[in-house]
Amino acid sequence: MSLTLPPLTKVTKPQFNFKSKHHFLPILCSSNSQSNPSPFSLVSFLRWVPDWADGVKESRVRDPRPLYTPENWREHRSSRRHLRHLLTSLSSRVILSLIPPVFSLTTFAGFIALYNTAVSLAWLPNSIFPVLKASPLPYQLTAPALALLLVFRTEASYSRFVEGRKVWMKVISGAGELASIVLNLRPKDDWSIRSSLINYIMAFPVALKCHVVNGSDIRADLQNLLEEEDMSILLRSKHRPRCIIEFISQSLNVLHLEEQKRNLMETKISCFHEGIGVCEQIIGLPIPLSYTRLTSRFLVLWHLTLPIILWEDCNWIVVPATFISAASLFCIEEVGVLIEEPFPNLSLDELCKQLHDGIRDIMSVHNLIHRRIHAKMKDLDEREVSDGRLSSL
Amino acid sequence: MSLTLPPLTKVTKPQFNFKSKHHFLPILCSSNSQSNPSPFSLVSFLRWVPDWADGVKESRVRDPRPLYTPENWREHRSSRRHLRHLLTSLSSRVILSLIPPVFSLTTFAGFIALYNTAVSLAWLPNSIFPVLKASPLPYQLTAPALALLLVFRTEASYSRFVEGRKVWMKVISGAGELASIVLNLRPKDDWSIRSSLINYIMAFPVALKCHVVNGSDIRADLQNLLEEEDMSILLRSKHRPRCIIEFISQSLNVLHLEEQKRNLMETKISCFHEGIGVCEQIIGLPIPLSYTRLTSRFLVLWHLTLPIILWEDCNWIVVPATFISAASLFCIEEVGVLIEEPFPNLSLDELCKQLHDGIRDIMSVHNLIHRRIHAKMKDLDEREVSDGRLSSL
Amino acid sequence: MSLTLPPLTKVTKPQFNFKSKHHFLPILCSSNSQSNPSPFSLVSFLRWVPDWADGVKESRVRDPRPLYTPENWREHRSSRRHLRHLLTSLSSRVILSLIPPVFSLTTFAGFIALYNTAVSLAWLPNSIFPVLKASPLPYQLTAPALALLLVFRTEASYSRFVEGRKVWMKVISGAGELASIVLNLRPKDDWSIRSSLINYIMAFPVALKCHVVNGSDIRADLQNLLEEEDMSILLRSKHRPRCIIEFISQSLNVLHLEEQKRNLMETKISCFHEGIGVCEQIIGLPIPLSYTRLTSRFLVLWHLTLPIILWEDCNWIVVPATFISAASLFCIEEVGVLIEEPFPNLSLDELCKQLHDGIRDIMSVHNLIHRRIHAKMKDLDEREVSDGRLSSL
Amino acid sequence: MSLTLPPLTKVTKPQFNFKSKHHFLPILCSSNSQSNPSPFSLVSFLRWVPDWADGVKESRVRDPRPLYTPENWREHRSSRRHLRHLLTSLSSRVILSLIPPVFSLTTFAGFIALYNTAVSLAWLPNSIFPVLKASPLPYQLTAPALALLLVFRTEASYSRFVEGRKVWMKVISGAGELASIVLNLRPKDDWSIRSSLINYIMAFPVALKCHVVNGSDIRADLQNLLEEEDMSILLRSKHRPRCIIEFISQSLNVLHLEEQKRNLMETKISCFHEGIGVCEQIIGLPIPLSYTRLTSRFLVLWHLTLPIILWEDCNWIVVPATFISAASLFCIEEVGVLIEEPFPNLSLDELCKQLHDGIRDIMSVHNLIHRRIHAKMKDLDEREVSDGRLSSL
Amino acid sequence: MSLTLPPLTKVTKPQFNFKSKHHFLPILCSSNSQSNPSPFSLVSFLRWVPDWADGVKESRVRDPRPLYTPENWREHRSSRRHLRHLLTSLSSRVILSLIPPVFSLTTFAGFIALYNTAVSLAWLPNSIFPVLKASPLPYQLTAPALALLLVFRTEASYSRFVEGRKVWMKVISGAGELASIVLNLRPKDDWSIRSSLINYIMAFPVALKCHVVNGSDIRADLQNLLEEEDMSILLRSKHRPRCIIEFISQSLNVLHLEEQKRNLMETKISCFHEGIGVCEQIIGLPIPLSYTRLTSRFLVLWHLTLPIILWEDCNWIVVPATFISAASLFCIEEVGVLIEEPFPNLSLDELCKQLHDGIRDIMSVHNLIHRRIHAKMKDLDEREVSDGRLSSL
Repeated sequence: MSLTLPPLTKVTKPQFNFKSKHHFLPILCSSNSQSNPSPFSLVSFLRWVPDWADGVKESRVRDPRPLYTPENWREHRSSRRHLRHLLTSLSSRVILSLIPPVFSLTTFAGFIALYNTAVSLAWLPNSIFPVLKASPLPYQLTAPALALLLVFRTEASYSRFVEGRKVWMKVISGAGELASIVLNLRPKDDWSIRSSLINYIMAFPVALKCHVVNGSDIRADLQNLLEEEDMSILLRSKHRPRCIIEFISQSLNVLHLEEQKRNLMETKISCFHEGIGVCEQIIGLPIPLSYTRLTSRFLVLWHLTLPIILWEDCNWIVVPATFISAASLFCIEEVGVLIEEPFPNLSLDELCKQLHDGIRDIMSVHNLIHRRIHAKMKDLDEREVSDGRLSSL
Repeated sequence: MSLTLPPLTKVTKPQFNFKSKHHFLPILCSSNSQSNPSPFSLVSFLRWVPDWADGVKESRVRDPRPLYTPENWREHRSSRRHLRHLLTSLSSRVILSLIPPVFSLTTFAGFIALYNTAVSLAWLPNSIFPVLKASPLPYQLTAPALALLLVFRTEASYSRFVEGRKVWMKVISGAGELASIVLNLRPKDDWSIRSSLINYIMAFPVALKCHVVNGSDIRADLQNLLEEEDMSILLRSKHRPRCIIEFISQSLNVLHLEEQKRNLMETKISCFHEGIGVCEQIIGLPIPLSYTRLTSRFLVLWHLTLPIILWEDCNWIVVPATFISAASLFCIEEVGVLIEEPFPNLSLDELCKQLHDGIRDIMSVHNLIHRRIHAKMKDLDEREVSDGRLSSL
Repeated sequence: MSLTLPPLTKVTKPQFNFKSKHHFLPILCSSNSQSNPSPFSLVSFLRWVPDWADGVKESRVRDPRPLYTPENWREHRSSRRHLRHLLTSLSSRVILSLIPPVFSLTTFAGFIALYNTAVSLAWLPNSIFPVLKASPLPYQLTAPALALLLVFRTEASYSRFVEGRKVWMKVISGAGELASIVLNLRPKDDWSIRSSLINYIMAFPVALKCHVVNGSDIRADLQNLLEEEDMSILLRSKHRPRCIIEFISQSLNVLHLEEQKRNLMETKISCFHEGIGVCEQIIGLPIPLSYTRLTSRFLVLWHLTLPIILWEDCNWIVVPATFISAASLFCIEEVGVLIEEPFPNLSLDELCKQLHDGIRDIMSVHNLIHRRIHAKMKDLDEREVSDGRLSSL
Repeated sequence: MSLTLPPLTKVTKPQFNFKSKHHFLPILCSSNSQSNPSPFSLVSFLRWVPDWADGVKESRVRDPRPLYTPENWREHRSSRRHLRHLLTSLSSRVILSLIPPVFSLTTFAGFIALYNTAVSLAWLPNSIFPVLKASPLPYQLTAPALALLLVFRTEASYSRFVEGRKVWMKVISGAGELASIVLNLRPKDDWSIRSSLINYIMAFPVALKCHVVNGSDIRADLQNLLEEEDMSILLRSKHRPRCIIEFISQSLNVLHLEEQKRNLMETKISCFHEGIGVCEQIIGLPIPLSYTRLTSRFLVLWHLTLPIILWEDCNWIVVPATFISAASLFCIEEVGVLIEEPFPNLSLDELCKQLHDGIRDIMSVHNLIHRRIHAKMKDLDEREVSDGRLSSL
Repeated sequence: MSLTLPPLTKVTKPQFNFKSKHHFLPILCSSNSQSNPSPFSLVSFLRWVPDWADGVKESRVRDPRPLYTPENWREHRSSRRHLRHLLTSLSSRVILSLIPPVFSLTTFAGFIALYNTAVSLAWLPNSIFPVLKASPLPYQLTAPALALLLVFRTEASYSRFVEGRKVWMKVISGAGELASIVLNLRPKDDWSIRSSLINYIMAFPVALKCHVVNGSDIRADLQNLLEEEDMSILLRSKHRPRCIIEFISQSLNVLHLEEQKRNLMETKISCFHEGIGVCEQIIGLPIPLSYTRLTSRFLVLWHLTLPIILWEDCNWIVVPATFISAASLFCIEEVGVLIEEPFPNLSLDELCKQLHDGIRDIMSVHNLIHRRIHAKMKDLDEREVSDGRLSSL
C-alpha cells in the first residue's frame, strides 16, 4: 500500500556495513591481529566478521571496570545521558558484537524483498514462484510471549548478577570484619603472626577473584601480600581460595585465642566457604541451556519470517524494519547473555582494592584510637573518683 | 486519513516551552546562577537547558527528605491526590529534568511533520524527496518488549532501593539494640566509658550516612556526639565508618564484660560491617551499564522513528503524540535512574535522628524502670515469703 | 462510524451519581458529620465529594479486621463469590473512594463528547473549532507500559504488605518463644518476677501495634497486662516499644539465669528490635514518591485524552468507555495505595489476642505437663531398674 | 461483517450444559447427597448448581494428596500429558467449580445476542431499542492490565504456597535434626525419657498439620505416638502445637544435658515456633481482600460487557467466544484462589509420614553404626600403635 | 484475501515429518529398542511417536552434564551462537519431544483448512456445512493472559531450579567447611577416625545425589569413599543421606572435641538436614497441578481453535502459522516442565567431584602450610625477641 521507497534501487545496506567496518578497522586490528582474512572472498569475510566481533567482546570482558563514584552518578543521572548513549552506540562493543546476527537477518530480509519484487514485477514466472507474504495476525498473537520470554531471560541473568554481587559483599565485609577482630584481639605477644594473618585475610578475596575471573595472574595480584614461601605453596595448590582459608585456619590455630573468639572468627570463615560455593555454582551452572536455546531459536525464527509477515504492509521497508526489530530484540538477548556470568562485570579488582585501603586505614588509626580510649578512661576514672557520681547517664 | 488539525498552522510547541521556561526562571536562577547564557544564541540555549535541568535535579538530590507521618499517609491516600499530583506536575523536578530529551524529540517530530507536509504539498520535488511514512506493524510487535524492558529496568532500580532500605533498617535497629545492651550491662564502675560508647554507637549511622551521601558535612553532623579529640582522629581517617567501628571495638575491649556478652555485641557489629559492605556496593556497582544504555538507546531510537510510523494515521498530531509518548516513557526511565542510587531518597538524616531520640528516650526512663523492677522484686519477695506459695502461675 | 447510541440524548450519568449519593447518605452522615455542605452550590459539592470519600476511607482504615477462619476460607473459595463481590460493589469503600476521580474524568469525557457533537452538528463554527479526535495508535503502543507500571506499582505495595506481615510473624512467634522459655526456666525462687516478665513480653506486640497504628489507645489495650506503676512509666516514655524492651531486659537482669540462657533470650529480643526497625521504616519510607506520582499522572493524562482517542470509534460511547476504563485502572492504583501502609490491613489486634490466648493456654497446661513428665520419668526409671536393659530403642 | 454462523438457529449451548450435568450426576450424587433439589424449578436449580460445585470443591480440598515419585515425574514430563489433561478436563474439579460463573456469563452473552438479533431483524422496534454494540478499542487498551492483574494475583497466591512449603520444610527438617541430636546424646541412663522425647518430636508436625488443616482428627493421627495420659493433656489444650512444644521443652529440662547441647536444641525449637507463626499468619491473613475483590469484579464486568464489544465482529459467535474467554480467565482466577490457602495442597500427611519413616530408619541403624564406629576406632588405634605413624592424611 | 500458497496441493507436512523420523532413526533405535512398531498401521504409529519422544527425553534426563568452564562461557557468548542453536534445532531433544503435540495440532489445522476449502469450493453442500471461521478479536484480548500465564509458569519452574541450586550450594560448601574444620582440629591422637570422618563428609553429597536422582547406583558412586562394612550398613538403610549423617554424628561423638567446636560442626550438619528437607520437598511437591493443567489445557484449546480464528486472514497459511505458534508456545511450556524437577539439570556428579578434588587438594597442602606457619612463627618470635618491638603494625 505505502510504496514509500522506490522498490528496486540497489541495496545500500551492505555498503554501509562495509564502511562501518573500515571505520572500526583500527580497533579490530589492535584487538585480534591473528585473524588475517588474506584472500578477500565472501566466505572468508563472513567467517571473519563473527571472529572479529567475538574478539572485541572477549577483550571487553577482560577490561578492568572502575567502581562508580559520585561524579559518575551525577553523569549517570544527567539529562544529557540519552544523547551520550546514542552517540556512543557505534563504538559500543555490545552493539558491535550484534553485527553478525543482525547483519545476516537484515540481508536475508533484503533477499526476501528482492525476490518478492522480482515476482511482482513478473521477472520471475508468477505461476511458479508465489509472492512470499502472510497475515501478521499469528505474529501479533505470539508477540507478547516472545517479549516476555526475552525480558524474563534477561531478568534471570540479572538476578545471577545480583546473587554474585551479594555474595561478594558478604566476602568483602566478612574479610573486613575478620581483619578488624584480629586487630582488636587482646594485646598478647603474637603481633607478628597477627600481621601475617591480616595479610592472608586480605589475600582471600584476591584469590577468589583469580579463581572466578578467567585469565587472572594470581602471582602478580598477591605479590604484595604474601611472602615468597607462602606464594610457592599457594601456587602448588589447585584450589587457591581453599588454600588461603587453610592458611587462615592454621594461623588461627597457633594464636592464643579464647575458644569463643575463635568460634566467632570461624563464623566469618563460613562466609568465605559460602563465597567459594556460590561463585563456583554461578560459573559452573548457567541458566538451563534449554531456556537459553529456546530464546535464541525463537528470536531467529521470528526474524527470518518477519519479512514475509511485513511484506504486504511495508514492502521494501521490511529491510529497515527487520534491522530495527532485530537490533532491539537481539540486543536484549545479548545483554542477558553478557550479565549471565557476572564476575567480569563486578569490578572485583576495585572491590579488593577498596577493602585493602579500608583495612590499611584502620591499621593506621588503630594506635591513635587505642591511646585515646585509654587516656579517656583514665581521665574519666579520675573525674569519677573526684565527683563520686556520674551525671550524664 | 484523519486530518483533524489543520496541517500547516504555525508550530506552537516551542513557544509553549519558551513560556514555561520563563515561568520557572526564578527557581532556576536561585538554584544555579553560575551558568549565565549571556549571548542568547540557539546553541548556547540548547546547552544551557540540560545544564539547568541537571542543576535543578542535583539540588533536589541534596534536599533533606522528612519521614512520612500518619498525616502524610492520610494525604497520600486522599482521593484528591490525583488532582494535586496533576497540578504540581510543572513544578516537579523529575519532570523538569525531562525537558531536554522530550523537547528535542518533540522538535524532531515537528521537523518530520514539516518535511512531510512540504513534500505532500509539493513544495519539495516529490520525485526526489519521498514522504517519510511506514507501516506501524513492526512497532506494534516490539512495543511489548520495550514496555517490559523499561518497567523491569525500573523494577531493578526499585529493588536496589529496597535493598538499601533494608540494610539501613539493620544498621539502625542494630545500633538501637547495641545501645540497649550497653545500657543494661550489670552495674560496674565503668559508667563513664559506657556513656561515651553509646555516643560512638549513635555516631555510626551518621558516619555511614556521610560516607554514602555525597556532600555531607561529617563534622557538623557529629559535633554533638563526639569529643574534639575523637573527631580529630575520625577526620584523619579516610574510611570514617570503619574508624567508628574501631572506636566501638576498642571501647568494648576496655569494658569489663563477660565473654558471652561481648560476642553478642560483636554479632551486632557484624551488622555494621554488612551495612558498610552493602552501601559501598550499591554505590560502586550500578545496574549493568549495558542494560541501562540499551534501555536509553531503545527509547531514543523508538521516538526518533515514531513520527514516521504515525504520520499516515495522525498527520500533525504526531507532534503531541510524540510529546505524550516521550514524556510518559522517558519519565519511567528517569524514575528508574533516580532511585537507582537510593541513599538520597532514604531520609537517612531523619532515620538517624529518630534513632537518637529513641536511645535518649530509653536513657531517660532507664533509671525509673530500674527502680521499679527492684521495688517490685523486693515487694514480691516479701509477699512470697508471707504467702509461702505462688498463685498466679 | 458506529453511531450506536443516539448522539444527543440528555446526559444520564450525573443523575446516576446524584442518586447513588443519596443512597449512601446515611453512611456518610454517620461517618463524618463535621463537613456540612450548607450552601448547596456546585463548588461546595465538588469540594464535599472528596472530603466525604476520604472520610469513609479513613473510617475504614480504623476498622478492626478479624483473622480469617476456615469458614471464611470456604466462603472465599465458594463459586458464589463473584456474585457476592459484584453485589457488594456499591457499598465497597474502595469503590466509594474512587468516586471523585472517576466522576471527574467521566464528566470531562462527557464535555468532550458534547463539544464534538456540537461541532459535527455545526452548532459551533466548524472552521474555528476542530473536532477533537485522533488516531488511537500512540495509545495502543503505550498501553502495555501503562498497564505494567500500574500493576508493578501494586506489586511493590503488596511486597510491603508481605514484609510487614513477615516481620509481625517474627515478633509474634519471638514473643511466644520467649514466654515459653521463661516458663520453662529451671525452678528457682523467682516465680513472681517471671510472671510479670511474661506480662511484659505479652505487652510488647501490643505496644508495637499502638506505635504503628495511628489513633490507638495504648492505656486501654495494655491495662490488663501492666500494673499501674509500669503503665505510668510507659506513658511517660516517647517510644513505648523500646520502653517495654527495657522492662524486659532489666527483668532478665534480675533473674538468676545461666549466661547461656540469657543470650538465647537476647537473641529473641533482637527480633523485637528488628520488628521496631522494619515497622518504622515501612511507615517512614513510602514507595519513592516520584514513582507514585508518575503512575498517578500517567493515569490522569491518559484518561483526559482517552475521549479524544476514542471519539472516532465510539462517539458517545466514550462516556461509558472512559468510565469503565477509569474505574478499572484507578481501582488498581487505589488498591496499591491502600496496601502500601500495611499495618491497618494486618489484623494486628487479633494477632496479639491470638498470641495471648496461646501463652495463657500453655500456662494452664504447664503444671499438668510438668507432673506428667516427672511421673513418667520416675515410672520409667523404676522399670529400667527392674529390667536392667532398654528394649524400645 | 462475518456472519459465519446462521444468526438464529436454536441455541445449542444450554442443551450441552444440561447434558454435561447428567453426565456428572453420579459423581455429584455420591459426593454430597444432602442437597436434594426436589422441586425442579429454575430458581432452585440455579441455587443448587453453586452448592453442588462448592460441595465438589470442598470434598476435593479434604482429599489426601500423595507425594510425587519418580514415576509421577516421568508421567509429568511425558509428551502425552497434553492429551491426558485435555481428556480429564471434564472430570477436573477445578473446572466443575467454574460452572456457575462461566455458565451464567455465557447465558448472559446468549441473551445479549438474542436481543441484538431481535432488534436487527426488527422484531423489536428499532427506534426504541438500540443494537447493543460498541467499539472494541477500550477493551484492547485495558486487556493487558486485566491480564497482568489476574496473573499477578495468581503469582501472589503461588508465593504463599511457596512460603507454606518452605516453612514446612523447616519444621520437618528441624524435627529430623532434633531427633537425630537426641539419638546421639552421650550415653547416659535416660534412654527411656529420650525415647518418649523422640515421640513428642515426631508428634509436633502432626499436631501442626491438624492445627492448620480444617477437619483433622488429631486423636487418630497421634494415637501411635503419644500415650493416653499425654493425649488427654494435649486434647485439653486449645493450642495443640504449643502444647507439644511444652512437652518437648520440659522433657529437655529433665534430661541431663550439657548447657551447650540444650541451646543447640532450643534453636531447633525456634523453627517450630516460627512454623506456628507462619502457618497461623498464612491462614489468618489472606491476600488483601480489596485486591481479590478487584480482580473478581474486573473479571465479571469485563465478561458482562464482552458480548456488546464483540457483537459487530462476531455476531452469534459471541456466545462461544464469551465461553472460552470466561473459562480461561476465571480458571486462572480460580487456581489463584485455590492455592491461596496452601495447606490442603501440601501433602502434609505424607510429609509427616516420610519424616517418621526417616527417623525410624535411623533408629534401626543407630546401633549398627555405633558398633561399627567403635570397632573401627579400636581397630585403627591398634594399627596406629603398631605403625607408629599415619599415612592416609 | 492473500491466497499465497495454492489451496489444494497435496499436504507436504507429513512427508517432512516422515523424513525427519528416518533421519533420527539411529538415535531412537539405540535409545529404546523395546518399542518395535512391527505392523506399520497408523494407530500403532501414533502410539509409537510419543513413546519414542518420551524415550529420547528420559535418556536425556539421565545424561551426565558437565560443569561450565571458561571455554564454554566464551562459546556461550559467541556471536555465532544463534547459528549454532538454529542448526542443532533438529537434534535437540527438547524439540524432538515436542513432535507429538505440535504434529497433532498442525495436522488438525490441516484438516480444518481442508474442510474449509472443500466447503468454499462447494465440494461439500454449503447450506449444511458452514465455513469454520471467526473474528480474531477474542483471541487478541486473551493473548496477553496466555503469554503471561505461560511465562510465569516457566518462571515458577525456574525458581525451583534456583532453589535446588542454592540448597546444593549450601550442602557442598557446608561439606567443604566441615572437612576443613576436621582437618584443622588441634593435633590429637585420633587422626585415623578423622580420616574416615572426612570420607563420610565427602560421601554425604553423593548419597544425597543418589537420593534425589532416580536410577543412581550408590554402591558404584561411593565405593572409593566407604569401606565395605560401612557400605553394607548404608545399603541396609532406607534413607541413605540420614544414615550418612548418623555416621558423621557418631564419629563426632567419639572424637575428643571441645564442646564449642562440636556445636560449630553441628551447625554445619544442620545444612545437611536442610538439604535433605529441601530436596525431598522439591521432588515430592511439584508446582500445584491445577496450575500446570490449566496452562496445558489453555494451550491446547487455544491451538485447536487457532485455525478457525486465522482462516479468514491466512487461508492455507493457517497450517504453518499453527505450526510456528504451537512450536514456540509448547516449547516454552516444555522447558518449564523440564526444569521443574531441577536435579537432573544440576550436574550434581560434577559438583561432588569438584568438592572431592577441593578437599583432597587441601589435604595435600595441609602439612606444607602447617610447617610453614610454625616456621614463620618461630622465626618471627626470634626476630621479635631481638628487635624488642613490632614495626609492621
